Amino acid sequence: MAVGAVLPESLLPVSGIKLATVAAGIRSAGRPDLVLIDAGPEASIAAVFTRNVFCAAPVQVARDHLRKGQPRYLLINAGNANAGTGLEGLNHAHQTCSALAKFTGASATAVLPFSTGVIGEPLPVGRIVDRLPYLLQNLREDGWLDSACAIMTTDTVAKGFSREVMLSGGCIRFTGIAKGSGMIHPDMATMLAFIGTDAQIDPALLQRLLSKAVEVSFNRITVDGDTSTNDALVCIATGVSHISIMNDEDLCLFTEALHALCKSLAEAIVRDGEGATKFVIVEVQNARNEQEAKKVSEAVALSPLVKTALFASDPNWGRILAAIGRSGVDGLRMDRVDVYVNGVQIVAQGGRSPDYSEALGQEAFAEEEVRIRIELGLGSSNYEKLTCDLSHDYVRINAEYRS
Amino acid sequence: MAVGAVLPESLLPVSGIKLATVAAGIRSAGRPDLVLIDAGPEASIAAVFTRNVFCAAPVQVARDHLRKGQPRYLLINAGNANAGTGLEGLNHAHQTCSALAKFTGASATAVLPFSTGVIGEPLPVGRIVDRLPYLLQNLREDGWLDSACAIMTTDTVAKGFSREVMLSGGCIRFTGIAKGSGMIHPDMATMLAFIGTDAQIDPALLQRLLSKAVEVSFNRITVDGDTSTNDALVCIATGVSHISIMNDEDLCLFTEALHALCKSLAEAIVRDGEGATKFVIVEVQNARNEQEAKKVSEAVALSPLVKTALFASDPNWGRILAAIGRSGVDGLRMDRVDVYVNGVQIVAQGGRSPDYSEALGQEAFAEEEVRIRIELGLGSSNYEKLTCDLSHDYVRINAEYRS
Repeated sequence: MAVGAVLPESLLPVSGIKLATVAAGIRSAGRPDLVLIDAGPEASIAAVFTRNVFCAAPVQVARDHLRKGQPRYLLINAGNANAGTGLEGLNHAHQTCSALAKFTGASATAVLPFSTGVIGEPLPVGRIVDRLPYLLQNLREDGWLDSACAIMTTDTVAKGFSREVMLSGGCIRFTGIAKGSGMIHPDMATMLAFIGTDAQIDPALLQRLLSKAVEVSFNRITVDGDTSTNDALVCIATGVSHISIMNDEDLCLFTEALHALCKSLAEAIVRDGEGATKFVIVEVQNARNEQEAKKVSEAVALSPLVKTALFASDPNWGRILAAIGRSGVDGLRMDRVDVYVNGVQIVAQGGRSPDYSEALGQEAFAEEEVRIRIELGLGSSNYEKLTCDLSHDYVRINAEYRS
Repeated sequence: MAVGAVLPESLLPVSGIKLATVAAGIRSAGRPDLVLIDAGPEASIAAVFTRNVFCAAPVQVARDHLRKGQPRYLLINAGNANAGTGLEGLNHAHQTCSALAKFTGASATAVLPFSTGVIGEPLPVGRIVDRLPYLLQNLREDGWLDSACAIMTTDTVAKGFSREVMLSGGCIRFTGIAKGSGMIHPDMATMLAFIGTDAQIDPALLQRLLSKAVEVSFNRITVDGDTSTNDALVCIATGVSHISIMNDEDLCLFTEALHALCKSLAEAIVRDGEGATKFVIVEVQNARNEQEAKKVSEAVALSPLVKTALFASDPNWGRILAAIGRSGVDGLRMDRVDVYVNGVQIVAQGGRSPDYSEALGQEAFAEEEVRIRIELGLGSSNYEKLTCDLSHDYVRINAEYRS
């Protein structure tokens, strides 16, 4: 079960974006698993894709189409990742784009395909193409929540958030949805997120802002360190509000809102991490630079021993120290390291803090939300990584998934 | 339970090395947990220690004493790692060395201390010092197997091997013991190995040969990616045989024997990996260079998704491709990658092999010993990593260890 996850209560429509869902029988009979998003004719679209070299066919096609011009349609299926499918997979992805082009009169390159689900199985192209007329006839502005549900795979809750922000020209709106149960699960491959805004913004600027937002949100979460063949994040700015970024303050507000939305979506993915029973923040402070703070936070957030101790609510703090010690940061001084867990100081200058007691530690580790704060005492750079624990259910879910 | 582990049947004595064990009540009442090794007055001693910055007090002291001169005694306890213990821990390690120095007339710097067990608890120095006279009175050449048992922590079997090799001057002998249940478990911190030979060899050369042997053995295994605060490997060459390395062929034979012994000990550790139900070799071939082959083999060997699939005997080969894809090797060409599991070709040129069937895959993954062979098709460099699966028991052992 997701840790303290909030169900999206109301996802606000974004002027200019219409969505439709349908059950195409790709994932399991009767469950919606196919989504069409119409971004409208004037939208700016930016995207960030997985850096996994074994990227899925739809990722390759979507990247290529984005380079070739102005996309309008996003076609997303759950239940099949169309990854590890070779040339046939590429053909399948192209076929879905061409079919949608034929129905709409748009160019095939105006369609971006996205897939999530099992790797290595052929995409059931026929079932997808058959549903396109239905999807086109059922596009509507309030389809965000349905879409958030339709793209789920091992997710236990739908993930979506809306935000409004007042720029100098008026109020603009963001709505975003995501799927992913763990940073990245190549199997149920894996994280997808779609964000819409009615702001008017140049595609190049949108791309820059989106890439930056990813750095402070999706790139700061981890469930198991495995990265996906299918990850994609798309941001559509329809421009329908005719409100644009007029000055530095607007840019700042827009950036803040986009970052906040991405962080909310990323956090929701970790809270719904496979088998997660705890939501964990690993905060590293006073490193010499951000890169080193990042290394330390990643080593701790990825350590199976730290994660099993968290699952067991066992204040086995030696595992945190050991993970810090192997993080590969030159010039780490163990005699300067302090560690706090939910405010309780456990380690002072590299050893057990004089005020620490096992009882205090047990209380801190027993919480459902655990903040591990590590002070390196070397400089002034910080980094924060979000993760979850490693439970019996993680092994069960991933051992039994295909059985 | 260990996967296909062999109990050491007969560990050959090594002339010049004497060992003694005793139950000092550090680990649990009645179980031997303290070992003294006397290397004799003329031995060359080489050692390799953990690269974890948070190294334990005994590691710091042993490193320092090795630099200061010719050590003679190795004092090893299980049940307490003396790590994360700050200045007090260093004092404790020094106290045990000084006490042994007093009893023997040797210098304190002639004693190398080693500890393995729980992190963060004070070392019970009194119990150790009290047993030193008994240990000194009970040193014997055939104490290797007893010592292999006494240094165990979460290990389920004792680990030790002997080898003999004919150099031009005569036959020399190696005997080695190790503990570790997983590459590295900072908690039961963790891997220790002690090797003796009666060969006569210069300490500097011995150190070079040992460091090289570690590269092809202990550094090629992983259970969970966590590295220990206490890892140490020591090789003692007593010189008692008066047989030395006379020529290149001798050097070659000596090196081969040392590598083989280290590989056997390393493999025994993986086979006894925490919760292991499978022994897994990840063999990467035809990389442009060894570094890249290593990156790919590590990504696959460390992937929790690959490891849970192995546990489940589920031929979920997409997870192997995804791990290869995120290994960070530039210039990886997915359309050149072939993957074989126990001889069954699963992936050909980045997609499912035409001859592959789910039934064939299930058979291959069902074996207790699994060899994953990955051909990158880029060059001629190879690398091999040994690991085990990720099972329910790994989570149980590490979640419940202190409860």
